[in-house]
Amino acid sequence: MERVELAAWLRLLETPGLGLARARQLLAAFGSAEALVGASPAAWREVLGAKAAEVLSQPPDSLPDQIDRTIDWLAADPRHQLLTLGDPDYPEALLQIADPPLLLYMSGRRELLSTEGLAIVGSRTPTPQGRDNAASFAREVSRAGYCVVSGLALGIDGAAHEAALSGPGSTLAVLGTGLDQLYPSRHQALGRRIEDEGLLVSEYSLGTPPLSPNFPRRNRIIAGLSRGCLVVEAALRSGSLITARLASEAGREVFAIPGSIHSPLARGCHELIRQGATLVESPAELLEALRPIVGKSKALPAVAEDPEPGGEPGLVLQALGHDPVTLDALIARGGWPAAQLNALLLELELEGLVARLPGQLFQRRRRG
Amino acid sequence: MERVELAAWLRLLETPGLGLARARQLLAAFGSAEALVGASPAAWREVLGAKAAEVLSQPPDSLPDQIDRTIDWLAADPRHQLLTLGDPDYPEALLQIADPPLLLYMSGRRELLSTEGLAIVGSRTPTPQGRDNAASFAREVSRAGYCVVSGLALGIDGAAHEAALSGPGSTLAVLGTGLDQLYPSRHQALGRRIEDEGLLVSEYSLGTPPLSPNFPRRNRIIAGLSRGCLVVEAALRSGSLITARLASEAGREVFAIPGSIHSPLARGCHELIRQGATLVESPAELLEALRPIVGKSKALPAVAEDPEPGGEPGLVLQALGHDPVTLDALIARGGWPAAQLNALLLELELEGLVARLPGQLFQRRRRG
Repeated sequence: MERVELAAWLRLLETPGLGLARARQLLAAFGSAEALVGASPAAWREVLGAKAAEVLSQPPDSLPDQIDRTIDWLAADPRHQLLTLGDPDYPEALLQIADPPLLLYMSGRRELLSTEGLAIVGSRTPTPQGRDNAASFAREVSRAGYCVVSGLALGIDGAAHEAALSGPGSTLAVLGTGLDQLYPSRHQALGRRIEDEGLLVSEYSLGTPPLSPNFPRRNRIIAGLSRGCLVVEAALRSGSLITARLASEAGREVFAIPGSIHSPLARGCHELIRQGATLVESPAELLEALRPIVGKSKALPAVAEDPEPGGEPGLVLQALGHDPVTLDALIARGGWPAAQLNALLLELELEGLVARLPGQLFQRRRRG
Repeated sequence: MERVELAAWLRLLETPGLGLARARQLLAAFGSAEALVGASPAAWREVLGAKAAEVLSQPPDSLPDQIDRTIDWLAADPRHQLLTLGDPDYPEALLQIADPPLLLYMSGRRELLSTEGLAIVGSRTPTPQGRDNAASFAREVSRAGYCVVSGLALGIDGAAHEAALSGPGSTLAVLGTGLDQLYPSRHQALGRRIEDEGLLVSEYSLGTPPLSPNFPRRNRIIAGLSRGCLVVEAALRSGSLITARLASEAGREVFAIPGSIHSPLARGCHELIRQGATLVESPAELLEALRPIVGKSKALPAVAEDPEPGGEPGLVLQALGHDPVTLDALIARGGWPAAQLNALLLELELEGLVARLPGQLFQRRRRG
C-alpha cells in the first residue's frame, strides 16, 4: 500500500469521534479513502453535516507518527499485511456482519482468511474438563480442514487455538489490541506460534493497548469469519454469549456443549440451547452438522473415538461414574469380590482409563 | 365390586390371547363386562369374528382361583381397591393415551390418582449426582403440590419416589407386576411406605411376577398419569426414553436434565433435548414451565436455593470447579497465598461446601 493511501485510511480511522458507520458513509460517497481525504471540507459537510465534517478536519496530532509506525511495521516482516474493505481478498463472510471492519491488520498466513472457519469460544476460567473439551473439538475440527477462529483469550480460546495448530485447518486469532500488543501476556508465546503457523488479525491500529470495550467488539469479527460458532463453557452474561448472539445474527449456526446443572460454566451453554443452539456431544457430530452449512462435501477423515472397553472392565467404568469413588462404594455398586475388583482397576489404570487418588479413591479418566 | 362383576372383568382380562384392544372393542359393543360375558358365543362372533370368539369361550382353568384371590385381597385391606375404565373416578388424563388400561389395581391413597402428576424417570444405575438430582427435583415438585409418578425401579425412580414422600404432592408408583408382588425386592420397604403415604397402581392381576415385556408397557401409564415427564439420567435406547416418547405422543411436555458429554447417562437426555425436550437446570424452572401446562395458577411456595457465598470464598469455589483439585493447582488458578487459601478452604469445608479428600485434594460439594 502506498504511503499516501495508508495515510488517508489512517486519517479516516484514527480521527477520534468519527466512528466506523460515518467512515463507511464517507467512503461510499467519495469512492476511496484518498479521494475522501483529498476532498474539500465543503464536500464533507454535504455528506456528514457540519459537526462531523469539523471533526474530520481535525486529525489527531499523533497521525504522522502512526503512519510511520505502520509503515515500519509493514516493512519489518513480510507476514505483516493490511487488508481494506474494498480489497478483492476481503472475506465475503465478513461482509455479512452488520458492521464489517474497514481495515484489517494481519500477521501470518493470509490465506487462512478465506478458508472455512469455525469459531470456538468460551470462558476465560474454564474447568479442566472444559479446557480438554475445547482442545479435543478444536483438534478434530482443524484435522477436518476447518480453521479454528477464536480470540486469544485465556482459557477456552487459548486451548482451542493451541490444539488447532496441530491440524491442517490451523487457527486464526482475532485480537482486541494492536497486533504489536499481544494480550494477555501469558499468551505471548501462543500468539507468536499462531503468527508462524496460523494467522493473527486485528482491526485496531498498532499500539492499541487492551481496552475493555474493544474485546466485545472484536467478537463480531470472530463470528463473521466463521461458518458456525461453538461455545464450550460459558457463564450467563459472558462475552462468549455475545459472540454467539452476533454469530446467530449473522446467520451462523450456534453450537453448545452441555454440562452439569451444578456447573455455573454450563449455564451459558444451556441458555443457548434453550434459545435454539444445537447441542453437540462430540466433534464428529459437530462436523456432521457443519457439512450442509458449508455446502460442499468436504472429505472428512475418520474421527478416532476411544474404544470403550467391554466386559467386566467396561462394567467397572460404568460403576465409577464421573466422580471419585471409594473401593467399598464400587463393591456395593457392582458386587465384585475385592480381589477381582482390584485387578480390574489396575488393568484400567494401566490403560489410562482410571486414576487412583490417594485414600483408595478411584476416578474415571477421559483420554484427551 | 360385586363378585359377578369382578368375575366378568377377570374373564375378559385373564383370557390368554384376547388382548386389550379386543377387550375394549367388546366392552364398547356390549356396554359392560357383565353383559359381555353373559352374551352368547354367536354374539361374540359377530363382534370379534370366529377365532377370537373361540378364544373368549375358553377361560383359563385358573380363573376361579384368581377371582377368589382378588376378592380376598380386596377384603384384606381397605386401601386395596379396583378401578375400571367406566368408573366416574377413572382419571381423564389416562384416557388420553392410546391404550388405556381397562382395570387398575390400587393400594394407598386413591385420591392421588386425580391430582396433577409429574413423571420423574431415569436410569436404574444412575450416578450419585443423578440420584441427588432426582431427589431434589422430586422434593420440590412434591412440595409444590404435584404428585411424583414413577415406576418403583431401582435408581432414579426410587430416589424420586422417596424424596417426593416428604411433600404434600406425595408420590404414585406404577408397577409392572401384581400389587402383591412388589418388585424389585430391594424396594419392598419403599413400596410399603408408598402404600401408606402415597399410591401403588398396577394394571396387572394379582400374582403377576416380574415379566420383562410388562415393564415397558406400564410406562404408558406413568406417562398418561402425568402432565409432564422429567428424565433425569438415561442411556440411549433405555426404558426412560420409551416413557418420554409415550409422554410426548400423549401430548405431555418432556423435560430433560443435561450432563457431561462424557457421561453415557447424559446421552439419552441430550438426545431428548435435540428432539425438542425442554432443558431444565432447576426445580424452579421446571415448576415455572409446568404452570401454563397445568393451566391453573397454583400457589407455588418459594423454592429455597442455597445461597452462593460471595467474595474470596466464592472465588475459591469457582476455582475448584467440579473435579478434585490439588492445593497447588488452586494456587495456580487463583493466585492466593497458601496460608490464606487454606483458611478459605477450611471455612468452606465447615460450611459443607468443600470436601477435603486424602492427599491434599479438594472437591466442591453440592448440598442436597
